[in-house]
Amino acid sequence: MKLSEIPTPALALDRRILKRNIATMAEALARHRVMLRPHLKTAKSIDVARLVLGGVDGAITVSTLAEAEYFAAHGIKDILYAVGITPEKLARVAKINEAGADVLVITDDLDTASAIHAYPAPISTLIEIDSGEGRAGVPPEGPELLAIGEALGPRLAGVITHAGHSYGARDAAGRAAIAKAERSAVVDAAKLLRAAGRKVEIVSMGSSPTALAAATYEGVTEVRAGVYMFGDLFQAEIGTHGPEDIAVTVIASVIGKRPDLHQFLIDAGAIALSKDRSTEATPHDYGFGLVRGLDDTGRFGTTIVRRAYQEHGVVACDPALPFPTLKVGDKVRVAPNHVCLTAAAHDRYFVTDDGETVAAVWPRINGW
Amino acid sequence: MKLSEIPTPALALDRRILKRNIATMAEALARHRVMLRPHLKTAKSIDVARLVLGGVDGAITVSTLAEAEYFAAHGIKDILYAVGITPEKLARVAKINEAGADVLVITDDLDTASAIHAYPAPISTLIEIDSGEGRAGVPPEGPELLAIGEALGPRLAGVITHAGHSYGARDAAGRAAIAKAERSAVVDAAKLLRAAGRKVEIVSMGSSPTALAAATYEGVTEVRAGVYMFGDLFQAEIGTHGPEDIAVTVIASVIGKRPDLHQFLIDAGAIALSKDRSTEATPHDYGFGLVRGLDDTGRFGTTIVRRAYQEHGVVACDPALPFPTLKVGDKVRVAPNHVCLTAAAHDRYFVTDDGETVAAVWPRINGW
Repeated sequence: MKLSEIPTPALALDRRILKRNIATMAEALARHRVMLRPHLKTAKSIDVARLVLGGVDGAITVSTLAEAEYFAAHGIKDILYAVGITPEKLARVAKINEAGADVLVITDDLDTASAIHAYPAPISTLIEIDSGEGRAGVPPEGPELLAIGEALGPRLAGVITHAGHSYGARDAAGRAAIAKAERSAVVDAAKLLRAAGRKVEIVSMGSSPTALAAATYEGVTEVRAGVYMFGDLFQAEIGTHGPEDIAVTVIASVIGKRPDLHQFLIDAGAIALSKDRSTEATPHDYGFGLVRGLDDTGRFGTTIVRRAYQEHGVVACDPALPFPTLKVGDKVRVAPNHVCLTAAAHDRYFVTDDGETVAAVWPRINGW
Repeated sequence: MKLSEIPTPALALDRRILKRNIATMAEALARHRVMLRPHLKTAKSIDVARLVLGGVDGAITVSTLAEAEYFAAHGIKDILYAVGITPEKLARVAKINEAGADVLVITDDLDTASAIHAYPAPISTLIEIDSGEGRAGVPPEGPELLAIGEALGPRLAGVITHAGHSYGARDAAGRAAIAKAERSAVVDAAKLLRAAGRKVEIVSMGSSPTALAAATYEGVTEVRAGVYMFGDLFQAEIGTHGPEDIAVTVIASVIGKRPDLHQFLIDAGAIALSKDRSTEATPHDYGFGLVRGLDDTGRFGTTIVRRAYQEHGVVACDPALPFPTLKVGDKVRVAPNHVCLTAAAHDRYFVTDDGETVAAVWPRINGW
């Protein structure tokens, strides 16, 4: 089957670009001799996980317990659930662990730490540190960290931080500065806990921008990154990778033409593309995605999805396009603003090795 | 099971409000003696369809062929697929019809009309008219309409329009004016086709705002509306319904607290809520959703989801909230900006008749 024959809208994954992105990150971290714990929240696919890990023996990060269950069922054991745990969710974690996995959880909350310690099954836990994002985490210094460490008791396995504000940096120097602060925060937290007699085995940091930008990972045991595997317009705009490194696109059909308005309609709208508008604040505003020809994966022009309704995308035409030859039923590709959210609406990838022939169909684990 | 015990994030549906919204629309249209062809693109649920239709004998509208297949498999026969068809999709439509359904399709394209006429199986088709939205459709007057009517030949079943720009109106008078233009466009188109000797059985118009606002439906055979069943913050802001008419909310757990920043975190983020920001342009900007207590479905305050990451929602606190008593694991409700997109990430509804006890779990048909 060709990509031109799949039912639309659908998600296409170029395995050549995926492999290249995986290799780029692996080489960057190998130079630092630090372990990568890939984040599978974007890919949500065991097939992608196998490519990143070279099998199923390795450590991963997930964003939902549904992902944890799915990857554990496929044989991956070392799984970090990197969203703050609640006491109510411990039973579900314990059930995954009973089947042979070792799911690590995270918290920045004293009561939750006590609940984890009191829980009948041992669940290894990382304390979340705020390294400047202002989202989750305790400060790397001071009494909260030590109190949570004490409350966790033998469940304390380490510390974790995520410098999500690295996506706000606009150049390599900015990313390097945030990576430095990210590393310091988590290494300092580990030192403080160790000085208080606590055992800290895992010192985890990472985001796709900082993972490629840090000058040193001294004191860090692992780096997390995920969206780098696929790439998207936003990351290309902020310079994390190039526009040619976008591995995932949405394949859509032309469903109507309005030459009078210099626009045409495609069957990929707000669900198939997501309503993410993250390129709004970057040098190029790509609307709801950049439209390309089906067989022209490298071409970037000015044709974008300008408006997104539930199942309609309104494509605003570059007047120079050969508009009169466009037919209803023609296929286009849309490069996404934010691939994590675009992929979330789709239950599978149509995988190609040549940008044209479907070599595999890989399922995704959505939901919670 | 109580809503307080379901795994989060999850979608809650208050059947009392749903029934009331259904009754309001049914009464409004009954006064006009015009048939409602409910749009199931928001609900995507046979259980909701049964409530609206009072069974499965009735006409519905859908936004994907996956919905058409699903509802046909559950016994609904009269199904309008209200997104421009492509020639490639006719085989899938024909297959649904072979099993006993009668799926109507729409087009505004001459070549597609010819392809429908030439297709071996008869597929009834409506011509899409642009009544002012500037998205899809041909003008209600002039040669394009007649040419498509001729190309369809015996496949022509009627005309259809959708005044989607009615969501841009900010008061009842504005909606009534758009409803008037919407009706005129489709009735005029039907007249023109009939004057040319074509048979026009279906004259279809509708959007949730105009369906409740039209002064007359003379010449119209059916009205389509869907999102009114559930309601959302955007519609409440533009006055289509009241804030108490929102039937669907996202149940989320508190996963972290940051009293220092007057914010807390919930496990409903950009996927569970969507990144729709439609209230940005309304009197109240609700961020990514309005946060309420689990058992306080009617209370609307100023506590909103200010930032949405993939699985984290950052809730900015009203300083008057009893913040210190909030615990990790506590449940909250989030009223959505745009329920069609919020619901799209979820595969089921947790249905209550008292806002508290789960009386049923209803699946949804997502994807394409």
